[in-house]
Amino acid sequence: MYESYWRKIGNMCDITFNGYESLSYFANGKSLCWFLESKLEEEIRRLHNVVGNAIVDDYYVVIGNGSSQLIMAALYALSPTNQPHPINIVAAAPFYSSYPEMADFERSELHKWAGDARNYDKDEPYIEFITSPNNPDGVIREPVVNGIQGKLIHDLAYYWPQYTAITSPANHDVMLFTVSKCTGHAGSRIGWALVKDKEVGRKMIKFMEVSTIGVSKEAQLRAAKILGVISDSCVNPTLDNFFEYSQSLLTDRWQRLRQVVKANDLYVLQKYPLQYCLFTKKFYETHPAFAWLMCKGSEEDCEKLLKGHKLQTRGGEKFGSYSRNVRISMLGKDEDFNIFLQRLEAIIQELPDGN
Amino acid sequence: MYESYWRKIGNMCDITFNGYESLSYFANGKSLCWFLESKLEEEIRRLHNVVGNAIVDDYYVVIGNGSSQLIMAALYALSPTNQPHPINIVAAAPFYSSYPEMADFERSELHKWAGDARNYDKDEPYIEFITSPNNPDGVIREPVVNGIQGKLIHDLAYYWPQYTAITSPANHDVMLFTVSKCTGHAGSRIGWALVKDKEVGRKMIKFMEVSTIGVSKEAQLRAAKILGVISDSCVNPTLDNFFEYSQSLLTDRWQRLRQVVKANDLYVLQKYPLQYCLFTKKFYETHPAFAWLMCKGSEEDCEKLLKGHKLQTRGGEKFGSYSRNVRISMLGKDEDFNIFLQRLEAIIQELPDGN
Repeated sequence: MYESYWRKIGNMCDITFNGYESLSYFANGKSLCWFLESKLEEEIRRLHNVVGNAIVDDYYVVIGNGSSQLIMAALYALSPTNQPHPINIVAAAPFYSSYPEMADFERSELHKWAGDARNYDKDEPYIEFITSPNNPDGVIREPVVNGIQGKLIHDLAYYWPQYTAITSPANHDVMLFTVSKCTGHAGSRIGWALVKDKEVGRKMIKFMEVSTIGVSKEAQLRAAKILGVISDSCVNPTLDNFFEYSQSLLTDRWQRLRQVVKANDLYVLQKYPLQYCLFTKKFYETHPAFAWLMCKGSEEDCEKLLKGHKLQTRGGEKFGSYSRNVRISMLGKDEDFNIFLQRLEAIIQELPDGN
Repeated sequence: MYESYWRKIGNMCDITFNGYESLSYFANGKSLCWFLESKLEEEIRRLHNVVGNAIVDDYYVVIGNGSSQLIMAALYALSPTNQPHPINIVAAAPFYSSYPEMADFERSELHKWAGDARNYDKDEPYIEFITSPNNPDGVIREPVVNGIQGKLIHDLAYYWPQYTAITSPANHDVMLFTVSKCTGHAGSRIGWALVKDKEVGRKMIKFMEVSTIGVSKEAQLRAAKILGVISDSCVNPTLDNFFEYSQSLLTDRWQRLRQVVKANDLYVLQKYPLQYCLFTKKFYETHPAFAWLMCKGSEEDCEKLLKGHKLQTRGGEKFGSYSRNVRISMLGKDEDFNIFLQRLEAIIQELPDGN
């Protein structure tokens, strides 16, 4: 979806590497994160300051191969090593479908997936993911367990102005962001964490060291360039503001989707609040990267039902929810999204009057 | 060390990325490894064919964030999931110091470090690392356990003509390589595995998916460019052959190091065979990326002793060996290597006659 913006701005984002550059494992920075390019750290801090979505002063920046690796690293860093049992990991359903897999796929004795945070009632240490806006349903989230032994990971991949109003700068202990959701450059595999506690940051860096000895310098330097251009676009009125451009794209897609869905009672979309955005100084309704569609009144598996009409979605069960829900991507290419809408419209028009 | 080559060839390796390129998680290739850029796969296969150090036909190529991630992925893929106990992981000492840490740092129930392969006598499944030429001591290795329940990972990071004669194309079940040791571009974090069995390859790819959702496209495309230039340099007589150039650098460094060390009996270097290299069609002595120095007759900790003279080395104990051994990097910058040699010479000249 973001490709049109990047084509529009032409060669402002071009970056060239010579054969003799970026040979070393090490970066030049004096950062705690020894493999983090100082230019990237600078642009990450600048962008958060420009957008106002997170506090960066007194935070350590840890870079990762996408936010996936940072999720793994945060689990590693927050898991106690002196306990007889693995720590419980929870997230309120519906949750990002990869959390359970990430928690358990290495069969680590450090941590284990413990399901829906709303059902967690053990008097034991736990780690809770708070994904806000949430993947898959776009809802703004707060912690739900609120136990005294909890450690929190705030996954803020979608806390950018194109998706939702920036209502305050986030200042949690561990906050995760990723270039892929912010700018669309998923292929670069660059994520970052803002970490308050030095020891937690150090352990996350250790995780990166052992698992991948850091992060590609090319990807880091290109990400620095891209984030820099985005910040420039926000402060320089002669440039096309990236977030305003993306807001208008998402607003248009959401309007068209709601238009198609509104004419019936069987298929219902999640509703979102209208909030004042400190970044744009305007009221903005949340327009998530995914739509969360509920197939009301149907006992059927909604993913299967839609697949029968050539509509690609992800079923709610994958997110710890019900099969009557599906997640629809709102970030695909224009042509794919248009075809999706046409097919969905055809299904809804075939419904009997009043459904 | 390789920087001089890359400066010499000028802009042949330049690569430019536009803002709208490489946005997707996916690569274009029809490879089993869905995030592998087809251009990189092509250049990897071409380079092995040009150098003759590994068979690529009927092998799957799996790309990773450095060979570190591929080591973790291979352990994951080769560990049985239906066993009550974690599988034992061994390597003959002295071994790469990261293997024990990689095996155990996540406290996985799938696998555990079991030490020196030469002491392994259990009648149980095991995984053996065969690092050849070996890190830290440069020796050409074969499996040592040779049990019927063994699964082998051949870490061939240093099986390139600048380090050792290419005596035959390797054709093991799982073979690991990395750009950093081949070309010097450690900052790119690009490694690859050649995998014979489809199911093992698939599991390794699954590991990459869950842990990092693939590998940076920028790093992959730049690596493709660099490997391509190296292959070109081998087949085009008007270009400076990369491996011959690197051989002459390493040969020179090793000669100077041996010259400094030969005048005494206390400090002794590992000896290597002279073998016929199928790539250069000449006899070549192994010139490893590391020197393995033994401080004979001394009960003292050799790393500590040398550190007292401002010589940075890594003590043998870190490699499952003795503290009388140290590993010396032979790939540092020219100036660092020269200072190292001067200081080592000063120590040796201070020794009493006949030691």
